[in-house]
Amino acid sequence: VRTIDWKNSTIFLLDQTVLPAEERVLAIREVADLAEAIISLRVRGAMALGVAGGLGIALAIERARERGLDLQTAAQEAAEVLKATRPTAVNLTWGIDRVLTALTLGPSAAIDTAEALIEADIRACRAMAARGAALLRELLPGLSRVLTHCNTGALAAVEWGSALGVIRAAHGDGLISEVIASETRPLLQGSRLTAWELGRLDIPYRICVDAAGASLIASRYVGAVITGADRIAANGDVANKIGTYAHALAADRSGIPLIVVAPESTIDPHTPTGSGIPVEHRPDAEVLQWNGSRTAPPGASAVNPAFDVTPAELVTAIVTEQRVIRPAKGELAAVRP
Amino acid sequence: VRTIDWKNSTIFLLDQTVLPAEERVLAIREVADLAEAIISLRVRGAMALGVAGGLGIALAIERARERGLDLQTAAQEAAEVLKATRPTAVNLTWGIDRVLTALTLGPSAAIDTAEALIEADIRACRAMAARGAALLRELLPGLSRVLTHCNTGALAAVEWGSALGVIRAAHGDGLISEVIASETRPLLQGSRLTAWELGRLDIPYRICVDAAGASLIASRYVGAVITGADRIAANGDVANKIGTYAHALAADRSGIPLIVVAPESTIDPHTPTGSGIPVEHRPDAEVLQWNGSRTAPPGASAVNPAFDVTPAELVTAIVTEQRVIRPAKGELAAVRP
Repeated sequence: VRTIDWKNSTIFLLDQTVLPAEERVLAIREVADLAEAIISLRVRGAMALGVAGGLGIALAIERARERGLDLQTAAQEAAEVLKATRPTAVNLTWGIDRVLTALTLGPSAAIDTAEALIEADIRACRAMAARGAALLRELLPGLSRVLTHCNTGALAAVEWGSALGVIRAAHGDGLISEVIASETRPLLQGSRLTAWELGRLDIPYRICVDAAGASLIASRYVGAVITGADRIAANGDVANKIGTYAHALAADRSGIPLIVVAPESTIDPHTPTGSGIPVEHRPDAEVLQWNGSRTAPPGASAVNPAFDVTPAELVTAIVTEQRVIRPAKGELAAVRP
Repeated sequence: VRTIDWKNSTIFLLDQTVLPAEERVLAIREVADLAEAIISLRVRGAMALGVAGGLGIALAIERARERGLDLQTAAQEAAEVLKATRPTAVNLTWGIDRVLTALTLGPSAAIDTAEALIEADIRACRAMAARGAALLRELLPGLSRVLTHCNTGALAAVEWGSALGVIRAAHGDGLISEVIASETRPLLQGSRLTAWELGRLDIPYRICVDAAGASLIASRYVGAVITGADRIAANGDVANKIGTYAHALAADRSGIPLIVVAPESTIDPHTPTGSGIPVEHRPDAEVLQWNGSRTAPPGASAVNPAFDVTPAELVTAIVTEQRVIRPAKGELAAVRP
C-alpha cells in the first residue's frame, strides 16, 4: 500500500491517524476532503504533502472538468485552500505550484505533472537513501544506534521515505544496530508510525519520550541523530517537527552528527533564515487530552507550536537527492555547487 | 490537604496517580504499602520522598512495637526496602538515615525526628520561596513568563514546594505573568499535577509538550527556566526529571537563567559529579501505553530513563533554604561558604 496514490481521478490515502491500530485507506475526490485530511494529519510528512498538494490541484481540475466549471478558477481556489492548511510545510506549496504552472500548458499537462510527482518522489527517496547511507558510513564510529524524531519513512512520502529511508538503507548496509524513535508528542508520529514501519521492516528499535533524547545523546547511547525537515531556509536553518531543536543542541554539545534528510523541494530559497519561517500552531486539545479523554485540569490551555527551527550551525549535513550540504561548515543550502 | 502527613501512627498520602481527576487520600500503615506507593509514584517529588522515607521508618518502628518485634531489625529492613524503590532520589535516603540515626537514642526520638521532618519541610519551602523570589527579581528582565518542568509544588513536598514554591512567591511579588508547564512525559506530572496546583493558586499557566520547551526558550517566549532536583552532585551537576537537560541546553544557548530550587538535603557530597548519580530506568509500559490502552505497535520496547543530568556549567543558580549557589560560575554545591 502506498501512502498516497492516484487512480481514476481519485487520491488514495492511508489514514495515518488510525495507525497502528488500523490500516484504513481513504478515497478522496473533493478538495475540501483533502484539506480536511491534511489538517487532521491523515496525510502528513514533508514529501507526502508535496505530492498531496500537486494531486489536490489535479483533483480540482478533474472535478471542474466533470462539472463544466472553469479549470483555472477551480485550480486557483484549490491552491488557496490547500496552501493554508499547513503554513510551515513548504513542500505542500511546492507541489501545488508545480501543477499550477503546468496548467498553463493545459489540463492534461497539469494532471501528468501531478501524477509524475509520485514517481519522482520514489526516485528522490532512493537517491537520498543511498547518499545518506554513504554519509553514515563516513560519520558513524561503527555499528551504532541512531536517534530519529517524528516519522520520515514511507508514511511521510509515497514509499521509502527521507530520514527513515536513509536509516533503512544504512541498516541494510550493517551500519545500524538499533533505532531509537522519540515518540513525538503530541501526536506520537514516532511511537505510532515510525515504530510501525520499523517493525514491518524488521529493524530493531526502541521508543523513548522526546525529553529523553538529549540525555541518550549525552550518554553516547546513540551515535547520530537523523531527521527530516519541513522547510530549510536559504542559509541552512531547518524547520522540523517540534523537538528537533533540543536533539540538535544535545548532539552539538556531545559532538554527535545531526543529519537532516530532505529533498531539494524542501529548501526554500525565498526564506533567507529560519526566523522567516512561519511556525504552525496547532489546537490546544492535542496537548490537553489523550485519546479523547482529558489529561489536564478543566480550564487549562496550551501553547502548541508544531515545529521548531534548528540553526544551520547545529546541522552537520543536509542530504538531498542531489547533494550533501554541510551547514555547520558554512555551506548555504540555497547555493548550488 | 497535605501531600503527606502523619497521624495516629499512620501515613496519609494524597494519591498523585489519580489527580487531577480525583482527590483520594490513602492511609498507609505498612512499609510494603508505602514502598508500593513510592514505586507507583502515588507519592513523589524530592522533598515529599524525604519525608516519606523518614515516616516509613517511623511506620516500621510503630508496627514492630505493636507486634512485639525487634525495632532495630524492623527499621533496618524497612530502610533497605524503601531505599531500593527510587535509586536516583537522594532525599529518600536522607530522610531514612535521619530517622535511623535518631533510633540509636530510642524509638521515641526516632518517631519525633520523623514527625519533625514535616515541619522542617514546610519551613525549608518557605525559605526557598523567599530566597528564590528575590533571585528572580534580580534575574528576570521584568514581568515574565517562566518555564517549569515536572511537578515541584505542594505535591512534591508537604506544602508549598520547591521550584513551584518560588514561582508562587514570585507571582505574588508581581514578577511572573504566566507559567509554562512542560507536560513531563511519560507520566505527565506537569500537565496533571503542576497545572492542577497552578489552577488552584489562580496563577495563569499554559501547558506545552516537553519537546516545545527548547523552542519557547529560543524565541524568548519565557524569561527563565525554574526546576527542582532529585540529586545534586558535589560539583553542582543536577539530576532531575528527564527533559531538564534539554531545557538547560536551550536556556544556556539563549542566555536565559536556569534556576534549580532544592533543599540542602538534595545535595549529595558523596557523589563528586553527575556521572556518579544512578539513573532510575522505569518500566517500558509508561512509554508504550496510555491509560491502559496501547499506543505503540505490539512487540515494541522502550528505553525509559526517569532522570537526566544537567552539567553544573549550565546551572545559573541553585536555591536552597540556606543559600544561593552559582554552579555556572564555578561555585561547588558541596562547599559551604
